[in-house]
Amino acid sequence: MITSSSNAKVKQVVQWQNKARERREAGIFLAEGRKLFREAPEDRIREVYLSERLWEPGCLEPDLREKLKRTGYETVSEEVFRKMSDTGTPQGILCVVKRPEYRLERLLDGEAPLLVVLESIQDPGNLGTVLRTGEGAGVAGVILGGDTVDVFSPKVIRATMGSIFRVPFVLSENLVETLALLRQRNIRIYAAHLSGEAYYDSFSFREGTAFLIGNEGNGLSPEVAGAADSLLKIPMKGRVESLNAAVAAALLMYEAMRQRR
Amino acid sequence: MITSSSNAKVKQVVQWQNKARERREAGIFLAEGRKLFREAPEDRIREVYLSERLWEPGCLEPDLREKLKRTGYETVSEEVFRKMSDTGTPQGILCVVKRPEYRLERLLDGEAPLLVVLESIQDPGNLGTVLRTGEGAGVAGVILGGDTVDVFSPKVIRATMGSIFRVPFVLSENLVETLALLRQRNIRIYAAHLSGEAYYDSFSFREGTAFLIGNEGNGLSPEVAGAADSLLKIPMKGRVESLNAAVAAALLMYEAMRQRR
Repeated sequence: MITSSSNAKVKQVVQWQNKARERREAGIFLAEGRKLFREAPEDRIREVYLSERLWEPGCLEPDLREKLKRTGYETVSEEVFRKMSDTGTPQGILCVVKRPEYRLERLLDGEAPLLVVLESIQDPGNLGTVLRTGEGAGVAGVILGGDTVDVFSPKVIRATMGSIFRVPFVLSENLVETLALLRQRNIRIYAAHLSGEAYYDSFSFREGTAFLIGNEGNGLSPEVAGAADSLLKIPMKGRVESLNAAVAAALLMYEAMRQRR
Repeated sequence: MITSSSNAKVKQVVQWQNKARERREAGIFLAEGRKLFREAPEDRIREVYLSERLWEPGCLEPDLREKLKRTGYETVSEEVFRKMSDTGTPQGILCVVKRPEYRLERLLDGEAPLLVVLESIQDPGNLGTVLRTGEGAGVAGVILGGDTVDVFSPKVIRATMGSIFRVPFVLSENLVETLALLRQRNIRIYAAHLSGEAYYDSFSFREGTAFLIGNEGNGLSPEVAGAADSLLKIPMKGRVESLNAAVAAALLMYEAMRQRR
């Protein structure tokens, strides 16, 4: 059992919690908690850390016990685990997972793909929620562009509630170019925009469809909004100026799902 | 200008930031940032604090300047403001606002009211987002029950993006009793539930409608779910077990709005 926070592995995990660059260079991300460990694909789990507390009787469900046997693990003292954890109330299990790599081609492969394109989403909870809702709505994938928050940050991973392991996503260095590729593949591009010409539920999303969602404070940049085929708006009563980005994305994805059911 | 954090007013604001009980006893909440100050009803603003930084040329928009003249304010040093602020990157303006008090009757008064009933929502961002989306969807009000997070906590207030000033809400000590009152008023009660009998868009929400949304981890309690007229489900693809609570609420409210447009 590891009982010292100056242990090299412990120090490495702490670095990975805090530094996006270190995570990227190692090609990994961290997944904390029972649910994420349960859903993590075994062939991508590189390391597992378990608080000693979890060995108390009745603490570990049988399926987790079995999975731990197959993946291997290191037990650490509760105090050390607290240091390694990104959360205030650690669940006592944390794994290091190899990053998936998706190619844009894969997202475009199926028939009438449904895509979400995010520009400069800054809130980790919003990004994670878009991935989670996206899986629920059956999107083919999510494209992350502009200055979007690191999809492999611990807060994003937690907010995905496991969808990070299943929803394909790609990073775009240049959204306008990526959107041009989408258009070549006959995917219609809709931007959620305050100056939208019609309500979101007046369009047909049965063909290949991509929804553009912009930054929480500033919306879409003019260049990216200008690359859309249509601007659509979500009706809003009262004095609401915009909806939360993850809510707006959800309304659009589920409207597409409703039409496609 | 206040330059000391041991100033009595400064210490009081710091207490209000951190202690729900102190806020409740004083009958106030704190609203930080330009947007919230701009949208706060003048007759409910009790105190305003401004960082000295905001007096630099061009820093304050004319409408804010005018409003400050009418409400009065205290200037504090940037360092003191940082102490008073709940955020990492303070906007330099903070106001103390008298709490609104709504009666359940008011929420039920209109024709075919649309209501959202939350049981034990724990995440401040989720609660704030429900109020914000609720205003956008035109709800008559939101009912907060069970062990729901303090609606007047600074994080909830920020997440409402100003809707806290406009969407009526009431706290319910006993949700089952409150739901019985709703039913007496011919409001149909729908619970978002994993064992829902039909998809959410197969019901008509044109009459008086209340949507029940449960806790992030555990959903609705059996007693509250049992008080619903119908259980509805939101379809989910992939291996998603549930949607984020604010997303689920948004999909239901906007489906009702779509049917009522």
